[in-house]
Amino acid sequence: MSNVVVSDPAQLAQACADIMWSTDRASQNLGIVIDTVGPGTAQMSMTIVDSMVNGHDIAHGGFIFMLADSAFAFACNTHNNYAVAQFCSVSFLRPSKQGDRLTAVAEERNRGTRSGIYDVRVTNQEGKTVAEFRGHSRVIPGTFFPVPEKSG
Amino acid sequence: MSNVVVSDPAQLAQACADIMWSTDRASQNLGIVIDTVGPGTAQMSMTIVDSMVNGHDIAHGGFIFMLADSAFAFACNTHNNYAVAQFCSVSFLRPSKQGDRLTAVAEERNRGTRSGIYDVRVTNQEGKTVAEFRGHSRVIPGTFFPVPEKSG
Amino acid sequence: MSNVVVSDPAQLAQACADIMWSTDRASQNLGIVIDTVGPGTAQMSMTIVDSMVNGHDIAHGGFIFMLADSAFAFACNTHNNYAVAQFCSVSFLRPSKQGDRLTAVAEERNRGTRSGIYDVRVTNQEGKTVAEFRGHSRVIPGTFFPVPEKSG
Amino acid sequence: MSNVVVSDPAQLAQACADIMWSTDRASQNLGIVIDTVGPGTAQMSMTIVDSMVNGHDIAHGGFIFMLADSAFAFACNTHNNYAVAQFCSVSFLRPSKQGDRLTAVAEERNRGTRSGIYDVRVTNQEGKTVAEFRGHSRVIPGTFFPVPEKSG
Repeated sequence: MSNVVVSDPAQLAQACADIMWSTDRASQNLGIVIDTVGPGTAQMSMTIVDSMVNGHDIAHGGFIFMLADSAFAFACNTHNNYAVAQFCSVSFLRPSKQGDRLTAVAEERNRGTRSGIYDVRVTNQEGKTVAEFRGHSRVIPGTFFPVPEKSG
Repeated sequence: MSNVVVSDPAQLAQACADIMWSTDRASQNLGIVIDTVGPGTAQMSMTIVDSMVNGHDIAHGGFIFMLADSAFAFACNTHNNYAVAQFCSVSFLRPSKQGDRLTAVAEERNRGTRSGIYDVRVTNQEGKTVAEFRGHSRVIPGTFFPVPEKSG
Repeated sequence: MSNVVVSDPAQLAQACADIMWSTDRASQNLGIVIDTVGPGTAQMSMTIVDSMVNGHDIAHGGFIFMLADSAFAFACNTHNNYAVAQFCSVSFLRPSKQGDRLTAVAEERNRGTRSGIYDVRVTNQEGKTVAEFRGHSRVIPGTFFPVPEKSG
Repeated sequence: MSNVVVSDPAQLAQACADIMWSTDRASQNLGIVIDTVGPGTAQMSMTIVDSMVNGHDIAHGGFIFMLADSAFAFACNTHNNYAVAQFCSVSFLRPSKQGDRLTAVAEERNRGTRSGIYDVRVTNQEGKTVAEFRGHSRVIPGTFFPVPEKSG
């Protein structure tokens, strides 16, 4: 960890994600997997299992939100600064059934000093869009790695 | 079931909720409890447990969404017609810790023939607001109980 | 102005609104009228005129947003602190025609130290709901009236 | 008009926009200009004038919404089917001053049979993002041009 080159955005993104993942029991317990992560972006996958569905074998929308929210959380925490979700919205476009493999791709739409906007598309194994999510993040105090002092 | 008086809104709301609950493995697995339900309204509670938190013992926002979304789902399904979530938004106002007991109260803001808007406030055991959620529902074909034919 | 009793919420709300209104050319030019204002609340009205409609004599949704947004702006600025809109959402439920008289009622849903949530319902002259709006405000530096020093 | 080749998406988009524009007094009165239009996309511009600002020469957020909403409306009406706004959200990221020239670019995020999602970024003359808007459209009965019968 101590060798992370904070000035390399791709390496920094991966290192931040590694730290977050190691303590994210919630995502782990849901069977979520990180496919890829990069500066301002993250892709995560999850299979809809028995405990996520209602009597019609349709996934509870909350689990789709959860997958999208996790991708958003990882994407907005790739710049070394701690960031949290402030406001999220989700449009459910197509139902998911038990056994479906869902993939969420989070991309940075906008990033300011204190806040950011991330768009997450959730698709199923057929590539069809299941949900569109937009998350607003806010930076809070703290960094994953020491910020190098700026030389004069 | 066959004795449900569909014309009594309170009895109908409870009966619809009973049916939904019996098959809602997702909410059951999260330890969610229905406190009360009525026409266009529902109150549900949940405790933040170990599997819902990240390394800082702060609840993953997705579980707060899940509780609010469940209360919304039950509230919008109290009028006999099947209804599903179409669009949801959530503002996270205060973090929740492991052990917190959260309560979500869903109230009907607007109901048309085909769609509805429900506001859900999530508070913790101190009565402080943790999140504000707004859900848009859409009616789909199907009813919980047979609709009595209208007499001429 | 100098006699405003800042400790009287109702008088303070009215005084803040008077100041805002005197410089709000945008709302004035749209023919918006303030019906009432109070702590965390505001009611405003507007008639849909020729310049607000498209070829089908249906009001451009932007003007309905504008009315709701104005009511929100006045409501969130009734506590002496300057506040601005950060995030807004609107659901269009029913079209408005030329000649319709719309009324927007803004109510405070949540207020923290730095931010607030306000719900605005827009109805027409028949009392039917035209739109539901939710606005998130953020406090910025500055007050309408000097804040009295707290005595020890 | 009668010569519009409905099967050419680019030509159809322009033709739909021409019809919409001819009757859109609201956008015309605000000084909005259509820069370009294409299948599922539209770019429109507007200058912040005196009547759009408050006493601090800051543009009323409603006019920024209006510009974004217009770009959204044109973009979602480029496929021949009439479409209307159902739900919109906007994040205000940076204030605009009198004299600023704002540009809104609407792009199709998702399109189903009955509904669509469009993202609109509003930037100022320096290319800085002023607002991010997301609009949900819904198809209503009617088309701009006769739909050719499908041959067997």
